[in-house]
Formats: sequence, C-alpha cells, structure tokens
Amino acid sequence: MLRSDSKSELKLSHLLIGPPLETAAAPHQSISNHIGLAVFASDALSSTAYATQEILLILAIAGTAAFSLSIPIALAIAALLAVLTISYRQTIHAYPNGGGAYIVSRDNLGEMAAQVAAAALLTDYVLTVSVSIASGVDQIISAAPNLLLWRVEIAVALIVAMTIINLRGVKESGQILAIPTYFFLGTMAITLAIGLVRWLLGDLSPLIDPPALAQQSVQSLTLFLILRAFSSGCTALTGVEAISNGIPAFHEPRSHNAAQTLTAMSLILGAIFVSMTFLAYHIGAMPSEDETVISQLGRAIYGAGAGQIILLAATTLILIMAANTSFADFPRLAALAAADGFLPRQLTFRGSRLVFSWGITLLAGLAALLLVLLQADTSRLIPLYAIGVFLSFTLSQFGMVVRWRQVGKLAPEEAGHSRHGTPLAFDTHWRTKLLINGAGGVMTALVMCVFAITKFRDGAWMVVLLIPLLVLAYSGVHRHYRRVAAQLSLGDLPVRPHPSPMRTILLVADVHAGTLRLINFAQSLGQPWQAVHVAVDPEKAERVRAKWAERVGLGELIILPSPYRSLTEPLRSFVQAMQAAEPNAFIHLLVGQLSLPDYGEQLLHCNSNLLIDMLLRDMDRVVVTSVPYQIDQRQQYEARLAAELDVEPSH
Amino acid sequence: MLRSDSKSELKLSHLLIGPPLETAAAPHQSISNHIGLAVFASDALSSTAYATQEILLILAIAGTAAFSLSIPIALAIAALLAVLTISYRQTIHAYPNGGGAYIVSRDNLGEMAAQVAAAALLTDYVLTVSVSIASGVDQIISAAPNLLLWRVEIAVALIVAMTIINLRGVKESGQILAIPTYFFLGTMAITLAIGLVRWLLGDLSPLIDPPALAQQSVQSLTLFLILRAFSSGCTALTGVEAISNGIPAFHEPRSHNAAQTLTAMSLILGAIFVSMTFLAYHIGAMPSEDETVISQLGRAIYGAGAGQIILLAATTLILIMAANTSFADFPRLAALAAADGFLPRQLTFRGSRLVFSWGITLLAGLAALLLVLLQADTSRLIPLYAIGVFLSFTLSQFGMVVRWRQVGKLAPEEAGHSRHGTPLAFDTHWRTKLLINGAGGVMTALVMCVFAITKFRDGAWMVVLLIPLLVLAYSGVHRHYRRVAAQLSLGDLPVRPHPSPMRTILLVADVHAGTLRLINFAQSLGQPWQAVHVAVDPEKAERVRAKWAERVGLGELIILPSPYRSLTEPLRSFVQAMQAAEPNAFIHLLVGQLSLPDYGEQLLHCNSNLLIDMLLRDMDRVVVTSVPYQIDQRQQYEARLAAELDVEPSH
Repeated sequence: MLRSDSKSELKLSHLLIGPPLETAAAPHQSISNHIGLAVFASDALSSTAYATQEILLILAIAGTAAFSLSIPIALAIAALLAVLTISYRQTIHAYPNGGGAYIVSRDNLGEMAAQVAAAALLTDYVLTVSVSIASGVDQIISAAPNLLLWRVEIAVALIVAMTIINLRGVKESGQILAIPTYFFLGTMAITLAIGLVRWLLGDLSPLIDPPALAQQSVQSLTLFLILRAFSSGCTALTGVEAISNGIPAFHEPRSHNAAQTLTAMSLILGAIFVSMTFLAYHIGAMPSEDETVISQLGRAIYGAGAGQIILLAATTLILIMAANTSFADFPRLAALAAADGFLPRQLTFRGSRLVFSWGITLLAGLAALLLVLLQADTSRLIPLYAIGVFLSFTLSQFGMVVRWRQVGKLAPEEAGHSRHGTPLAFDTHWRTKLLINGAGGVMTALVMCVFAITKFRDGAWMVVLLIPLLVLAYSGVHRHYRRVAAQLSLGDLPVRPHPSPMRTILLVADVHAGTLRLINFAQSLGQPWQAVHVAVDPEKAERVRAKWAERVGLGELIILPSPYRSLTEPLRSFVQAMQAAEPNAFIHLLVGQLSLPDYGEQLLHCNSNLLIDMLLRDMDRVVVTSVPYQIDQRQQYEARLAAELDVEPSH
Repeated sequence: MLRSDSKSELKLSHLLIGPPLETAAAPHQSISNHIGLAVFASDALSSTAYATQEILLILAIAGTAAFSLSIPIALAIAALLAVLTISYRQTIHAYPNGGGAYIVSRDNLGEMAAQVAAAALLTDYVLTVSVSIASGVDQIISAAPNLLLWRVEIAVALIVAMTIINLRGVKESGQILAIPTYFFLGTMAITLAIGLVRWLLGDLSPLIDPPALAQQSVQSLTLFLILRAFSSGCTALTGVEAISNGIPAFHEPRSHNAAQTLTAMSLILGAIFVSMTFLAYHIGAMPSEDETVISQLGRAIYGAGAGQIILLAATTLILIMAANTSFADFPRLAALAAADGFLPRQLTFRGSRLVFSWGITLLAGLAALLLVLLQADTSRLIPLYAIGVFLSFTLSQFGMVVRWRQVGKLAPEEAGHSRHGTPLAFDTHWRTKLLINGAGGVMTALVMCVFAITKFRDGAWMVVLLIPLLVLAYSGVHRHYRRVAAQLSLGDLPVRPHPSPMRTILLVADVHAGTLRLINFAQSLGQPWQAVHVAVDPEKAERVRAKWAERVGLGELIILPSPYRSLTEPLRSFVQAMQAAEPNAFIHLLVGQLSLPDYGEQLLHCNSNLLIDMLLRDMDRVVVTSVPYQIDQRQQYEARLAAELDVEPSH
C-alpha cells in the first residue's frame, strides 16, 4: 500500500526510479561520430526489420509471382533516401543548434506550420514506439513460437519496463547505447555478406519449409497495388530525421560531424534495406504472422539454430532501442510545445529524476493503448505510420526553401534574420540549395499523398483525421492560456486597501474528536462562526443536532435540509443567501477532514473536503479550509490537551 | 466537456439517468405470486440456456457416445433441486422478512460465516452478470453469425446499457418485468411440447447440418469426467435462492405465498431442464462455439427461420433479465455489508436517483472486466460460477440446522431468540426440519467440493482463492472502521477551552490578480501573515521576488529553495521548523487556486491546492485553505473594487 508519509514514498520510488536528482545536476557532454551514429541511427536502421516484410505482404495480394517487384521498389526507396539525405545535410548546416521539423517550421513558416509539424511528430513518436515494440515482439515470437498467444502481454510488459527505465532517467552515456546498434550492424553485415556471397556462388537455395502466407486472396497486379507496396516500404525511411534534432550533441564542428554521420547512416541503411530485400526474394521468404522475414533470412543462411537466434536477438534489441529514442524525443518536443503554450503546462515539469515524467507517462500510455487496440499487430500499425514522418519531412524541406529565398534577398556579405529571428548569412549557392530542398519537399509531399491514398482504408484515415484535430486542440490550449494570462495580468490593479468582512461557517458532519479540532481552529481564528450540518440523512441529522447541543453547546447547529441527498447543493444555496445579504464579504467554509496514515485507508472515507473544494470553486469569494484530524494520534492529542489544561487553567 | 457549473451537470445527468428523486420517494408495494414468479425466477430459469450445453461440452471429451449420460445427469440435478426446494421452503417460513444466506448465516452462525456468505454471494452476483451476458451474446450470435467477431464488444455494450438503466433506477413495476419471463416460459413450453410430442410420434429426426464440435480430443470416460459434467450442469441451480431474499415483496401471508412461488418455480425449472436435455440428446445437438444448443433445438423443431429466432430472442431476453437481477441484488447486499462496516461506506450512499450508484458501478466494472479478460466465452466463465452459489446454499442450510437446534431447546409454547436476536418460536416438528435442512446442507456441500475439485484447473481455483481473500479484506475494512470509530469517540474529551496561537503562511506561486485576492483574504482574516514562495524553478523565483517587492511590498517574500523541484517537501520542512518553535500553534497555509469554468480547462492547470491538501494532511495542526480566483470574472472584480474604493475612501 502506498504510504502518504513522505519517507516511505521516497523509499518506494527509490526502488523503482532511484533517488531524486538536483536541478543543477543536468550534464552536458559532446559525443564522437561513432557514438552519434549508434545513438541516433537506431530508429532508422531498425526500420529494416519490418520494411521489406511489409512490401512483400502487399505484393502477396497479387500472388507470390509479384514478389520480384520488391527489388525495384526497394531501389526506388533507396533513391528517395539519397535525396532526403542531401536535403537534410543542408538543414544540418543551417541549424547547428538543432533543426528538427518543429524548429525549422516555426522559424520559417510560422506558428501554424509549427503546430502541424508538432502534431505530426508527436503522432509518429507514439507510432514509433508501437511499431518498434510490435515488430520486436514479432522477432521474439519467431524465435519462440510458443509465445504467440502472449503477443499483447509481452508488448505491454516491454513498454512498462521502458517507462520505468526512462522515468529513472537514461544518462545518455553513448558507450552503452552504442552496443546494441553495433551488435545489430555487425550481425546484419555478416548475415547479408554470407547471403550475397552464397548467391554469387549460386549456393543460396530457397528456404525449406517457409511459413504460411498471411494473406491468401489473389487480385490482379495494379499500379495502385504497387504504390501501396512502395508506401509500406517507405516506413524504412522513418527515423532519418533523428540526427537533425541531435546536432548539439556532436563534437565541434558540430554541423560538419552531424552531416558526415547522416551520410554514413543513410549509406548503411540503404545497403541493408536493398540487400535484405534482394536476398528475401531469392530465398523465397514469405510474409507471415508466424515468422518474420529476418527470421527466415537467418534460417536460410545459418539454418535453424544459434545464428538465426543471434540475428533475431540483435534485431529485437535495436527495435527496443528505436522505441527508446521516442521516449527521449516525445517528452522533449512536448515540453517545447508546452513551454510555447500549446500543450498542458504540466508537460514542462521535470520529475524527481530531472526527466519530463508527464511526457514519458503520456507516451507510454498512448503507445500501450494502441498496441492493445491493434493487438500488437505490426501490419495493422504500419498504415498509421509514416504519414506523420513524411508530413514533417515536407514541412521541414519547404521551411528550408523559404529560408533560402530569404538568404537570396540578402546582399553579399550581409547578415539578416529569419521570420522567427534566427540569423541568416549570405550564401552564393542559395539557388542550388533551394532547388535541392524544394525537390526533396516535393518528393516527400508526393510520397505522403501516395501513402495517405493507398493506405487510407487500412487505417491512414485515422491519422489524416487526427493531425488536424490535434492542431485544433493545440490552438484551443493556446487560446486558453492566453485568456488566463490576460485575466491574471496585474495591469494597474491595486492591492486591496482594507479588509473585507468575513463570515465563517463550520461544516459539521458529525460530532466526534475531529469536530473538536475543527471548533478549536475556528475559535483560534478569532472570528464569529456559525455551525451548519447538511441533512443528507435526516435521521442522522437529528442525532448530530442532539449530540451538538449536549456535547458542544456553542450556539445552535443549523440543519440544512437536502431532499436530494446532495452535500454541496444545500451549502451552495445557504452561501448564496449570505452573499446576497453582504456582497463584499468572504464566506469562509471550515471543513473537517479525517487524515488516515495511508491512501488505501483514506479511500475508505468520503474526503468531502476535496469534493467541496472542487465543487464550490466557481463561487466568487468563497474560501474552503480543510482542518485535518489525524487518526491514530489520539494519545498524543489527549496528552497535549491535558498538559495545556494543566499549565493554563481555564479563564 | 463536463461543466462544473451545477445546472449544466444536472442537465447532462438528466439525459442519461433522469432528474434526482427525493429521499421520501422510496415506494413499497407487494406483488402477487404470478408477478413474483416472473420477477424472481428469471435468474434460475435462464440457467437452462447454458446448463445442458455445458454438460454436453464436458461429455464430448469422451466422444459423442457419452452424450447419452446427459439424461441421468440431468435427472440427478433435478433430484438435488427437489431437496433444495424443500429445504428453502423451511427457510422462507422461518424468515418472513427475507432469509438470504447473509442474513441466515449472520443470525445463526455468526459474523465470520456471514462474511464468507457475503464474499460468496458478491462473487456470484458478478458471475451471474458475466455468464448471463456471455450466454446472451451466444444466442445472438447463433441468430446472426456475422457478429461473431464482435462478441466482447456486444457484451460490454449490453453491460453499459444495463448500468445506465439501473443508475436511472428500475421502478420494480412487476408487470413490465413479467413480460420477458412469461414470453420465455411460453416459447419454451411450446417448443418443448412440440419436441416431446414429435418424439413420442417417432417424428423427431436428428438435426441436419449440426455445427462443429467445440472440442475434438478424445479421452476415455471416467467417473471424474462424469462428475465434471454433473458440476457443469449444476449451474442450472443458480438463482434458486432468489425468492428467499425477496419474501417481503409478496402479498400477505408472505411466507406462504413465497413458498408456493418457490415450489412452482422449481417445478418449471426442473421440467424445462430435463426435457431440454432429453430433446438435445435425441436431436443429436452438439456443444459448439458457433451455435448454442437452444438454437439447434429451435432449428430441429421449427427449421431455420422465425420460430428459431423467436426462441433465441426469448432466451436472450431472459438472460438479460437474469443479469439485471444482480444489478438489484449486488448493490443491496454490498450496502448491507457496508452498513455493518465490512465494505467501504460509500457503498451505502444512494445517488440522485435513490439507487446505490457505487454498488451498481462496481458490479458493472467487475463484470465487464471479467468478460473482457475471458473474451465473453461462456465455457471459460462457467468453472468460476456456482462455487459461490453452493457455498452460500451450504451456509444457509447449516444456519437453519443451528436454528432448529435452538428451537429444540425451547419448552413447548416458549419463545426464544437466535444468536443474533431474531425471535424463535417452538415447533414440534423441529427434528424433521433439522434433518431436512441438514441433508440439504450436506448435499450442497458435497456438490460444492465436487465442483471445486473437478473444475479446479479450469478456473475454479480463482474463486477458491478469491473468497478467503475477500473475507480477509472485509475483516481488514471492519478493523479499520472500528479503529477510526474508537479514535473519534468523544469519550470525556472537553471542547478546548481557549484559542491556540495561529501562524498564517501565504503560499505565493506568482504575483498576479489571483495573488491580490489571496492577500485580500489574508488581510481580512485579521491575523499577521508571512508570504513564502517555493523555488521549484530558481529563475522564476527571482522574478516572483522582484515582482512582489515592486507590486505588493507588504513584508518580505521568503524564498524556500527546492533543489529537487518538489513543491511540498520544502514547505513541510518550513512548517516543521515553525512547529518546533511553537508546538501548540495552528499553522494555517493559504493557497491560491485558479478556478476555471469547466473541468477540461481546470486540468490545464496544476491545482496545487488539492495536492498540498492531500500531501500535508498527515501534519498535526496544519490547516490548508484554498482561496479561489475565478478566471473570466475580472470585469466584475474590477467594477466591484472601483465601487468599493469609491464608497469607502482608503483610511
């Protein structure tokens, strides 16, 4: 049971998330390109775990003969990756302090675009967690088919574990984060190399005993179907933008190092994705619910055994790492948007471990909900994914186009400012750079439309609907905070020069030791007071009235009838009558509260003080005071009272 | 969005559950035997919807040849029903004010037995809802196989609908409740009569196109298997005790009328159950996930069409009625146990519609959870069911045995009292009656053991574990309330004779219009005060200090450092230091609160007043006051302030 006592609370949270950290403890250190690759590439590289399989899954609708199309599709996606990489290198050089889509959009396209980018990114961070975890569970099930029935449970357990780890706060010590990435890269490189060499030697034979195809219905091969398969494959490009967010983490010259790392990452990603798709076709891999394509690849190359298991372990690890990057990025972006007043302010709070606890919890909750609703099924999650990524790609590229046009307006050697105020320097190559970012933007916009159209019925409609709704919600939140700020601004309001009249009401629920404490407090305030009892239960009211007269006897106890058994409504009418008589007075309601030593016991009582505080908060100049009485402290209380009576005889 | 404004709240709840009802509106009227049968028999009669099917499902493990055993099993269960009925008639005569297992156990066997009975009954009320709804969905799916994938959703939707209806409060107008019961009885009587006549005429042919068997594995027929099938069939007896709870509802002579109704119900139940099992065997019905045995019976007798659909509709309706009886019984028993101090007191509260809203909501939540967890699968729910029923049967019978022994100790014409104080009258036949109840008790105890053993691995273990845990929880709650009552008892505590010293602290989060309201209140209290600010964010703290000095200037603002960004911990230390200096003083914390017009907007703010109230409630003599400031009322505020300044020039 959770103890409300702060010491015990600390102990429980220590166990789970560790002791609190001081505000001053936030560290900063820069990292090498090798570590940077490991830290920022896991999201992009892990996409190869599902992209090939999702292409095959769509092509399978037109029969397994259509699988040969997977290779040209993979090459087209690799070409798109090349354009994106060149484009993003420019963004990295232009924004050495970090050039995520939110920042680039806000800086060049304005608030509205920034909000759209934020909506797109936050949606996709949630989906990155869901898709990566679902695919990770797929790999685990490929290795241990008996776990099939526990798919959702494993996924949720992984999310809970990651939530706890992230609430502890990951000290982004690159060395440790680098291990899974390089483990995956090494394993994958060896696997693909053996596969390609065996194919060259004519030694690569089709997989024996492939798993059952997930889909059986056969349609004819249409352009629409090919575009659908291409869209599925484009999920391989998710995560490419990660380095542009993380530029400040690199050694100086930061932009140069980050750009180099981006190029290296894209080359590796392209190589793995194309080779894997090529080999998957040649071993006759089948998209299946029982075994992932990576598992089939491992089985074809190493046979069923240790080699395959190691490959699956490496893939699962990097998928978990990819999900983990969202646990860093989502709370950070949410805090940024919340600080700008577009999301609830609580998202800017750092918890006891200096992390954005609310953001982490929100992300985990949403991702877990999605996994439960879609039964941790990767293929059902994929159609929701990537729209947001491509939308933010597009906004980021077009933001850069606007920026280059601003640069083009500068005279040589002149310096200027972007719309949002970041410095601009003249650049002789601005036209070329504008064209490159423009081409990138047009391509990603096209892919986004293709994705939205071809996947619309499979689930993309949800995201198409969700992003505008999120933007609406953001502006609602923004309007709210601006209104509240205007209402709260001091302007020329003076401090009120003299006290207002005060009417004090004692709310008596029953006559017991806690009531005596309440009366003691009221007496100590030194103001006249009036006791009232709300007769939710008329029989009890009669007993309370009699007991009050017998045991307290300080004035009459007013009984407020409550025919509908409401505690607050009769109180509200009573207070309104007092206010009508004396509009400037404060009405001060004193409410007793039983304080129990733990939350479980506290829940066995009504806690009507909190209820009254919540329900009467709309009444102007009505103030509610909770006077707690601690159960289990009666002995101390009696001793103190006796001592007091002894020392100061009554006068 | 939920408006906190009470008028709008009422409107929303009006729509869903109707306007509030006055406490005085609780009606009471008695009902005829015909209506009584309809009202109290739905639970028992509806059990026939699944009992036969569940017997066949177990026998199927030994192959369809074993189905012939279903008839002797049904006859054995009918014999058990006869014993139970004779036994319960005696209870009804002994307890004309209602003789449920909880009351009979408490009256004769003591608190512990009463708690066990309550645990058993509450568990079974939840299961009655889950099983009846699951079986109802089975009937719906038999009629509309396309709904198969929506099994859980339909079940949950039914529960939500029933919850809303019951929160409105069912005016137990027997006439309307009688319709589904008599509709079911009529339809079932016609169906079984046609079936039996056709069998007599040799015209009843086996079902064409029976559904697929749910289970295929074949084991040999063992005694254990037969006992398992018998246990499954005993679920037909659930609900037989309902009339003994409802005796006060009958016309005078109540006991006589209730006993007659019980006999009628048992005869009908036995006849339906035995004939249905007999016919199911002769048409070759198969236990299946796709089609219920009742649906197969309808199809064999009427052919696929209107007749079958009407039979399924009648069955679904009576199953829903059966679930609905738990919605009346669970909250009533929970309120009884809560009034005795064994369950949280909130369960005794009547909501705006005079019903036990907490109990209804709790029941609906638990039943829905169970349906979701077990995928609304009747066969997975059945092993959890009936243990509780048979445990309460047993306790009730043995309670009666104890009662007859007390009666036996009386002299002729002497009157006495039971353990709990209900009157006892001498009865010359006490020995016979003791024997009958004793035999009933032994038989139900045996069935309970058979059930627990044969169904242990299928899920009965959960209930075997749950009931003792519930009893433990009840006594924990009971001990808690007794401890609190002892701590609160006035004893000879006097009203404290003189005021205690008062130290007032103003908690300043920021300097804005709400802060001026807070200061105004503090000034109006007429006590000296000290303003403090907890420096969760050191930069903000500096700004607040400067603004305070500039705009308020009433004394110094103390800044409490908070290196771990906690709001309450520095406050706690500050208060502790004050208490150490002056142990008898009240520490009065004044906390500002922004009051927003609806709950959605309220959630966008920290509501730290509630947090502080919750977290500091363990500190003796520390009192927290919320001073709300209503956003959107600035204009009124300024106008009032101007008027006040005008009327009373500052002095």
